[in-house]
Amino acid sequence: MSLAERILQGDIRAAARLMRDIDDGFGSAVEELKTLYPHTGNAYIIGITGPPGAGKSTLVDQVTAAYRSRGKRVGIVAIDPTSPFTGGAILGDRIRMNRHASDEGVFIRSLATRGHLGGLSHSTGDVVNVMDAMGMDVVIIETVGVGQDEIDIVRMAHTTVVVMVPGLGDDIQAIKAGILEIGDLFVVNKADRPDADRTVRELAVMLEMNSYREGAWRPKVLKTEAQKNLGIEEMVNEVEAHREHLFGTGEIRRIIEEKHAKQFLDNLRDRLFAEVYGHIHINGRFRKILDDIVERRRDPYSAVEEIIAEHLGRD
Amino acid sequence: MSLAERILQGDIRAAARLMRDIDDGFGSAVEELKTLYPHTGNAYIIGITGPPGAGKSTLVDQVTAAYRSRGKRVGIVAIDPTSPFTGGAILGDRIRMNRHASDEGVFIRSLATRGHLGGLSHSTGDVVNVMDAMGMDVVIIETVGVGQDEIDIVRMAHTTVVVMVPGLGDDIQAIKAGILEIGDLFVVNKADRPDADRTVRELAVMLEMNSYREGAWRPKVLKTEAQKNLGIEEMVNEVEAHREHLFGTGEIRRIIEEKHAKQFLDNLRDRLFAEVYGHIHINGRFRKILDDIVERRRDPYSAVEEIIAEHLGRD
Repeated sequence: MSLAERILQGDIRAAARLMRDIDDGFGSAVEELKTLYPHTGNAYIIGITGPPGAGKSTLVDQVTAAYRSRGKRVGIVAIDPTSPFTGGAILGDRIRMNRHASDEGVFIRSLATRGHLGGLSHSTGDVVNVMDAMGMDVVIIETVGVGQDEIDIVRMAHTTVVVMVPGLGDDIQAIKAGILEIGDLFVVNKADRPDADRTVRELAVMLEMNSYREGAWRPKVLKTEAQKNLGIEEMVNEVEAHREHLFGTGEIRRIIEEKHAKQFLDNLRDRLFAEVYGHIHINGRFRKILDDIVERRRDPYSAVEEIIAEHLGRD
Repeated sequence: MSLAERILQGDIRAAARLMRDIDDGFGSAVEELKTLYPHTGNAYIIGITGPPGAGKSTLVDQVTAAYRSRGKRVGIVAIDPTSPFTGGAILGDRIRMNRHASDEGVFIRSLATRGHLGGLSHSTGDVVNVMDAMGMDVVIIETVGVGQDEIDIVRMAHTTVVVMVPGLGDDIQAIKAGILEIGDLFVVNKADRPDADRTVRELAVMLEMNSYREGAWRPKVLKTEAQKNLGIEEMVNEVEAHREHLFGTGEIRRIIEEKHAKQFLDNLRDRLFAEVYGHIHINGRFRKILDDIVERRRDPYSAVEEIIAEHLGRD
């Protein structure tokens, strides 16, 4: 029986194996994903992002517990930043969320952000598809950091939660401005810290400066103390309110379309490049071109055009 | 006369115009870049990166003044984070470094980080090439943030300076670990803050844990107060020491090769995708595929394979 068939029958180990194959870039994984795809589209996807140190892991842990108590199955994809040099995950294989370890209704997978060829948002989407096909009701994507990569990843979600922390100060004004536009819900975690109310007010003021269409969703700012499990129910209720808004207004269709368009195009970009690069690498063209560019015997722009003309059969 | 010819004759306005064309993705810019390319390879490229709020702009301003007083011409490429929604630069067109505004030996260009199609490291490399061909002795690339994008960009530099700020605490341990490996020189700016010495010690300890080859460059940790112009000469001297190390050991050849390989491949990836995407967008294929994927009439994986087989003429 194929991995995909075993996964559809509820085999957790087959799912873990397929996700490892995806992470390692095995070609066979694509065949399995094709089989799983018709069984996807049922999971609700929640993105949780925010700067390092905002306590996202603990928050995700508590949100998972809250969904479990509502009888939902929860998949978690945690994106680990990668060392740009060694290619390894920086946070390592965190032993996280031990209390869910023996719970068959929770499935956790860490993905390392690896260089270029992989295309992280691509493999994240694939792993989400596996969890979706496994029958997870909710899939949480957790990213560390607030760069373009993280924004790309959380935009695969139906509801995006931005986690802030009190007292970050004016220094992160730039980050705030970027992240204000992707959040459907803002959470100020570690709300027992002195500056919490000020941070809530600042965020609320910045959000009010947005102009909302009539009937558009207006993001709220909530306080949580994930360590003490405070504010979690309110946060989950607000996520559910956003979900109802999307389905009630039909806006969900646009979000799903954007998500699929992005995943398809990312995948196309990666695979196209991998094909052509593989070709010019093996036949020695790339080495020759690189030497010529370094020695300035030719320019890189016409070299790119030449390769494209050869492979796409047009100019 | 073409823009490129005017640039080679020292026409600053032609250079500004070409950089705007690059930023806007005009196809004509590529022809100009081809003409300029044989005249590049003389500038020394310095990358300056670090978290928001570390005072990088002020530092770059002072370093520029220091190089000017040594008789060097300085180009600056400042990468602005972009709003993921509006596509506009978050920091806006900062009026920065006024004191260099009337100095013909300084050329400043801000680049906004725009979505996907553009490929920021690609256009950054093109702008650096223009500055190089203009005869700038030093080109400084300044990025805001410490994500994978920024790391990709500063890796185009010959010498990378990582700017830290005192008192960031344990929260950014993950960021530190990622960034330790890309720095040839570490600067703790705002060194008048109470925690400065502790931050210097922490960085030094983390660096000592690296294992260096015999004769390899060992990054130092320096303190600066850019606002008061303190420590800048020492910093520039250290950058120059690194440059001498690279040329003395011949290591510069490897760095230049990596830089060109990366730029060539980024460019190839972007152009390949743009060609194929343009094709399936115009002929309506993309719209049809997207509808089929959303309705789960077909899976995205075989759709990608089909498009690739059609365009690359193999399967």
